[in-house]
Amino acid sequence: MIFNFTRKVYLDNNATTLISSAVTKAMNKVLKTHFGNPSSHHTLGYKAANLIAQARSIIASSIQANHKNIFFTSSASEANNQVIHSIVSDFEARQQTLKIITSPIEHMSIIATLKALEKRGVIVEYLTIDHHGHIDIEAAKQQIDAETGLVCCMLANNEIGSIQNIQALAKIAEQQGAFILSDCVQALGKIDINVNQLNIDYATFSAHKVHGPKGIGAIYVKDGAPLTRLIQGGDQESGFRAGTESVHNIVGFGQACKAIPYLLKQSSITLSLKEKLKQEVIKFNKNVTFNAEQSETLSNTLSMRIPSVDKHSLMAFLDYYDTSISSDSACCSTNHSASHVLKAIGLTDKQANETVRISLSAQTKMKDIQYLVKKLSHFFAAYNHNITLLGPNSIDYNFLNDDNNYILDIRGKYERLLMKSIPNSHEHHFLNYQEVVNTLNKEANLILICTSGMKSMLFAYQLSHSGFQNIKVLTGGLMAWKKAHAKLYHDLAGTNVIKIDE
Amino acid sequence: MIFNFTRKVYLDNNATTLISSAVTKAMNKVLKTHFGNPSSHHTLGYKAANLIAQARSIIASSIQANHKNIFFTSSASEANNQVIHSIVSDFEARQQTLKIITSPIEHMSIIATLKALEKRGVIVEYLTIDHHGHIDIEAAKQQIDAETGLVCCMLANNEIGSIQNIQALAKIAEQQGAFILSDCVQALGKIDINVNQLNIDYATFSAHKVHGPKGIGAIYVKDGAPLTRLIQGGDQESGFRAGTESVHNIVGFGQACKAIPYLLKQSSITLSLKEKLKQEVIKFNKNVTFNAEQSETLSNTLSMRIPSVDKHSLMAFLDYYDTSISSDSACCSTNHSASHVLKAIGLTDKQANETVRISLSAQTKMKDIQYLVKKLSHFFAAYNHNITLLGPNSIDYNFLNDDNNYILDIRGKYERLLMKSIPNSHEHHFLNYQEVVNTLNKEANLILICTSGMKSMLFAYQLSHSGFQNIKVLTGGLMAWKKAHAKLYHDLAGTNVIKIDE
Repeated sequence: MIFNFTRKVYLDNNATTLISSAVTKAMNKVLKTHFGNPSSHHTLGYKAANLIAQARSIIASSIQANHKNIFFTSSASEANNQVIHSIVSDFEARQQTLKIITSPIEHMSIIATLKALEKRGVIVEYLTIDHHGHIDIEAAKQQIDAETGLVCCMLANNEIGSIQNIQALAKIAEQQGAFILSDCVQALGKIDINVNQLNIDYATFSAHKVHGPKGIGAIYVKDGAPLTRLIQGGDQESGFRAGTESVHNIVGFGQACKAIPYLLKQSSITLSLKEKLKQEVIKFNKNVTFNAEQSETLSNTLSMRIPSVDKHSLMAFLDYYDTSISSDSACCSTNHSASHVLKAIGLTDKQANETVRISLSAQTKMKDIQYLVKKLSHFFAAYNHNITLLGPNSIDYNFLNDDNNYILDIRGKYERLLMKSIPNSHEHHFLNYQEVVNTLNKEANLILICTSGMKSMLFAYQLSHSGFQNIKVLTGGLMAWKKAHAKLYHDLAGTNVIKIDE
Repeated sequence: MIFNFTRKVYLDNNATTLISSAVTKAMNKVLKTHFGNPSSHHTLGYKAANLIAQARSIIASSIQANHKNIFFTSSASEANNQVIHSIVSDFEARQQTLKIITSPIEHMSIIATLKALEKRGVIVEYLTIDHHGHIDIEAAKQQIDAETGLVCCMLANNEIGSIQNIQALAKIAEQQGAFILSDCVQALGKIDINVNQLNIDYATFSAHKVHGPKGIGAIYVKDGAPLTRLIQGGDQESGFRAGTESVHNIVGFGQACKAIPYLLKQSSITLSLKEKLKQEVIKFNKNVTFNAEQSETLSNTLSMRIPSVDKHSLMAFLDYYDTSISSDSACCSTNHSASHVLKAIGLTDKQANETVRISLSAQTKMKDIQYLVKKLSHFFAAYNHNITLLGPNSIDYNFLNDDNNYILDIRGKYERLLMKSIPNSHEHHFLNYQEVVNTLNKEANLILICTSGMKSMLFAYQLSHSGFQNIKVLTGGLMAWKKAHAKLYHDLAGTNVIKIDE
């Protein structure tokens, strides 16, 4: 069964990381023993509160901060939202117009928050960025002025890895009396962070990018910088965030940060693995280009463009061979439009859709890279899997009514609720793979559809492996088809759909 | 060491619950195996997304809802905030004045959110409540009118356990075209919840009150009721909450909900244990009264008032004997003012400070209740522990300069940053108990201080047990002393404080 193997090569560490065994162990101890509510006035409560204080100290010292300047949140997204919300509240209280200047390649938790604020009268301007993903500091000097209340710029980009000169930007912001927020999510554990040296007012972090648990983030807030609650209620986090603390997650975050010195030491090895990968790939495909690699970039991140290759096909092919990579940020992965980061560095929509992200970790070994290189070479050699890609335009009225076509919608039950299917399709949950193999004719003219085209590709490789001979995949999935055939979708979507799996 | 024993009797289940071993096991499997980002387009990601979908279904069916109406949050506090925020956004978009009617005994995540909104022009009105903690439905009929946009009323109260007639209230709200939010955090697993029968628009839940993990909550949103993001960014939760999902926490929540039918079955046993407790307590203290016990109340919750007894002393005494109970909601426990719930049902500040909450769980056994009863009888019999309670007024200038007094500040290092200490005090972290015992003179005239007076009481019982003969505790702690001696605090707090533990 395709959905039940052990992952061989995991190279999507910018999306999330494997949780370290030390972290799991520390979390387990909390789950089993220290279950008290940290706000409770009894020994069990005090113990839990003490564990939080300890974790806070560890996290603080890993960025050279004082523990009283660290506030936990449920994610870095929440952290980014809270910082921006704090500045907005501060300006609203003083009835002052707020201008925020941001890099155009921020995480969506910043971009989307700012977009929503524009409707409330906040002025948002974007910094100039070069083709390597770096802020133009000279231009920033002109742009950041006395009217600017906040500057947002991530320390290292999640998609292309470019590292910014935050210290220079912070100096400009300070001179103009503006606060500066630096999203340090991807930088933590990859480059040494000293919040004092960077001279930033706010920094945000996430545990699950450094082998810690999902569902816990943190904000560093410099003394004197405003902080307002996003979640009202109880007195947790010195009154700045209501809600019973996720003690096990906080302890897991602290434990993960204990390994940061080790992670930093490993980065030179990671870099040499990335260089090896680049050299090998270039050997068998001269057209491959690398984004943001000509200047300062995270040692673990490789943004790679392979002209004329559909990224979904490549990702699905590698996934079939037990190798995880990604296209862009996982957070906007259901969005299906081209990455705003790749477009900001000058790539066209087409070029962005030819780009994949390979992100290593301190656990990546030479054999992982060798395996990836081997599989990439197979892919480039057009390894025959009997799979045809079908553009959304080709599935028209006639196609739908051709009895020779067997349209297989492999979306999960939950996804089906979000969007009606192509008419005359057969719903067969992707987890029911074995049943599909057992019941369908291997010569059938199969057309696989899913939401984005991605799951279908993976399923197609699997079916091909099981002997199916005519497999077509709808590229771009239902999303693309709806766009290409708006009227057909409106009139017929969801009609005559046959549920095979229920 | 006092902070390292196994808890014998845990009766603070309304604050939080012991995590069940099935939940820990399920969470562990996710932590170790299913570490993919649920938004990632590869098998690891799809697997994680599928686990979330499964958990969503379990939670939905435990309240008779459809999974598409369930949205995860990091806590019920966040959930309550998000629902109110959604209604506010909806009204603001239509430029309509919003009136919200709430019960006065809601959780602080509702009360505090509404208080903050009043400043933004939202009209907030409070429902009438009787001495047993129940909403006056007839009065509500008059109060809820066509101008009302939202009605907030919890299904069961966290402090006194009173169960409301939400169905009747929802009918009134519906007739007036208002939405209704019912905080079901304490009700889940204690009374059978059917969101359709209750006819509510929103319901909020928390995993850690039903033997699940801390850091995960959920909102039920009826079809057609508005929902707006509180956290902007990625497309998680169908676009209604950004941030990488805490997959292990969500899976833990789902696993916890599997046990709800069992928990509901146990409630008659829990009720009989509570009745037994009431009978026994009354036997040796005729003055004890029980809040909200004359009408429909949660079977596990007992709010008990013992005239002339300081709740902190009782809680500390029981904590010393390995028994956890509480005073009021843990979420506002650093607030130190009398519970708004107890005041709303007519108790004076003094009476509220004589009230403790004992909350059982399905795991509570008869022997736990017998042990508690025995310890309560010892406490009422004025078990001599050589401890004197010292009111904040008595620690005046002369007292501070009396060399015979040895003032011991036992707050943790983190707490010390929040508030300066009494002058001439000795800081000795409460975890350093053994060192205090070893170094101090057993005949010394010790005055114990902490933030609220609570930790000092616990420490005092412990010191008394170790042979110390003159122990005084500052009741109300530093908070009370600062209030009683504002000038002295302003002039002298933090001076001549000796750090013993560093």
